[in-house]
Amino acid sequence: MTELKNDRFLRALLREPVDRTPLWMMRQAGRYLPEYRATRQQAGSFMGLCTNPELACEVTMQPLRRYAMDAAILFSDILTIPDAMGLGLYFSEGEGPRFERPISSPAEVAALDPQRAVTELQYVMDAVALIRKELDGAVPLIGFSGSPWTLATYMIEGGSSKDFAKTKALAFNEPAVMHQLLEKLAESVALYLSAQVAHGAQAVQIFDTWGGALSHAAYREFSLRYMQRIIEQLPREADGRRVPVIVFTKGGGQWLEAIAECGADAVGLDWTTDIGAARARVGDKVALQGNMDPAMLFANPERIRAEVAGILESFGSGTGHVFNLGHGITPGVNPEHVSAMVDAVIELSPAYHS
Amino acid sequence: MTELKNDRFLRALLREPVDRTPLWMMRQAGRYLPEYRATRQQAGSFMGLCTNPELACEVTMQPLRRYAMDAAILFSDILTIPDAMGLGLYFSEGEGPRFERPISSPAEVAALDPQRAVTELQYVMDAVALIRKELDGAVPLIGFSGSPWTLATYMIEGGSSKDFAKTKALAFNEPAVMHQLLEKLAESVALYLSAQVAHGAQAVQIFDTWGGALSHAAYREFSLRYMQRIIEQLPREADGRRVPVIVFTKGGGQWLEAIAECGADAVGLDWTTDIGAARARVGDKVALQGNMDPAMLFANPERIRAEVAGILESFGSGTGHVFNLGHGITPGVNPEHVSAMVDAVIELSPAYHS
Repeated sequence: MTELKNDRFLRALLREPVDRTPLWMMRQAGRYLPEYRATRQQAGSFMGLCTNPELACEVTMQPLRRYAMDAAILFSDILTIPDAMGLGLYFSEGEGPRFERPISSPAEVAALDPQRAVTELQYVMDAVALIRKELDGAVPLIGFSGSPWTLATYMIEGGSSKDFAKTKALAFNEPAVMHQLLEKLAESVALYLSAQVAHGAQAVQIFDTWGGALSHAAYREFSLRYMQRIIEQLPREADGRRVPVIVFTKGGGQWLEAIAECGADAVGLDWTTDIGAARARVGDKVALQGNMDPAMLFANPERIRAEVAGILESFGSGTGHVFNLGHGITPGVNPEHVSAMVDAVIELSPAYHS
Repeated sequence: MTELKNDRFLRALLREPVDRTPLWMMRQAGRYLPEYRATRQQAGSFMGLCTNPELACEVTMQPLRRYAMDAAILFSDILTIPDAMGLGLYFSEGEGPRFERPISSPAEVAALDPQRAVTELQYVMDAVALIRKELDGAVPLIGFSGSPWTLATYMIEGGSSKDFAKTKALAFNEPAVMHQLLEKLAESVALYLSAQVAHGAQAVQIFDTWGGALSHAAYREFSLRYMQRIIEQLPREADGRRVPVIVFTKGGGQWLEAIAECGADAVGLDWTTDIGAARARVGDKVALQGNMDPAMLFANPERIRAEVAGILESFGSGTGHVFNLGHGITPGVNPEHVSAMVDAVIELSPAYHS
């Protein structure tokens, strides 16, 4: 394997010394970039882009050509696993992801095959291998998946939801069925992320987009516990290096202490949490990733720079911080505003690593 | 004034001893009730219902006929003030509230007249007076308003929003304009709630539905501070009794200590916060209101009862708890499931008040 030229992302996740705070952006390959929109049009559809390894590789590389990001992230969707299980993922304009055949009975849960995350998702593995080759050691490659709870919400609701009425009704009324579903999804995610690592991913992130919609108790029972189970099954090394795991529960700021115990190397924070207070709460148990409000990128470059400065100062001195947004970048952001953020991290963060 | 026959809601808000935990439900007059849907149809439109004091009174009373609620809440909308200011509130099916003329320039902010919250909203005051008369001292009447920040988001976005891009861009790029808007709204809300109290409201709640979309720092600057300013201006007594103020920031669980300092008598909690942990954090500074996940009402009655028991046990012994949902009741809930919740609170809570 080619030697990794920039490993500060991996080092910060493991709380090893770095020269400056590393950074990347959730959804860094995305609609805010004109070159992304051009490739997306060429692909014909969002799923066409995801399932074409060459085009997925191309959009993965695009933000790295513009910005000094310290990591690349596989271009894909969090919902590939349910799609591989036969639910029929599609994207309708303005409505986000939807499934043609949502789960509607215990028999359908029982029939789900966790192995399909590896037997049916070769296109993801091909993209991982191709991106890793294309990166040529420039920066590490992040693999990812949705969390079991997050996948379950889409599989049961058939798409996005405001109140998750069907999913929660199942969880509360038929917990055994919900746990069977989550167990299968955890097995599937573990297989899927392990395969991504085997094909070249050097870190993995579990996106728990909807864990924050649960109560404190239900979060532990239906989301955190299954992420912990996944982490226990992941390969901890590849190419002789540890493969760090990042867990990101949007809206999970109240539960940081519990999340920090799940076995992940790093915890993603959304912007509602003060990162300095979060660091005090988790101590040296995990690294922290985040956490600028994505809407801050609608501000002017001076304001963006001040916000970056505040986040770096709040985290304070020493390693263990990966700069990121607190959620995916919003379509409509001016790409030059991203430059302001990146420049600020590069210029201001070395002072915290002397 | 007629003597209040059931004052345990007011007593619990002031942390005075009660015989059992009082309860009410946010949006307790609403679409889940067939009698509400009938009156709503009679009114022709949602705003037709809000602006007709007799019909607003009728739907306010409906849940009290079914359930042993310890408070009534004025039937109205959180967006009456911007409507009174001339923005043109309307409701489009499936899209929620919208404004015909959203705010789009500093000149429009400068032109807003805070006094219109009292000069243009006589229909609200008539409804308050009529409901108070109709209640005849059975239970106290809660008045309410949206918070300045929450009103501002709708006024700038023109409706609901996922990322509040326009509102946040204004807050970050032109903070002076945003503060002018929030100052005017705070003045307006203070006038509006004071008038509701003058017409008969015995407690008031400020709904900060979207405060939780802000960062920890921006929440203090753009939302909490203006709620504090409102509270400072409210009459603290009416009919010789203190008029308690409840502040409810959905998604504010991380900021409880700060919220508890804003001058409110009680803080509303959504279901992501453990109410026992919240009590330990705020001590005897404020009472707490909440916090069952509204989706729990889709569960079976046994499960609902168990959840109520858990919340009561988590809060523990003594006064200072008003049982409620952690957000408004969801349309589609079976009204009998609400009975299960109410019965559980009535049967299980006296043990915590011996």
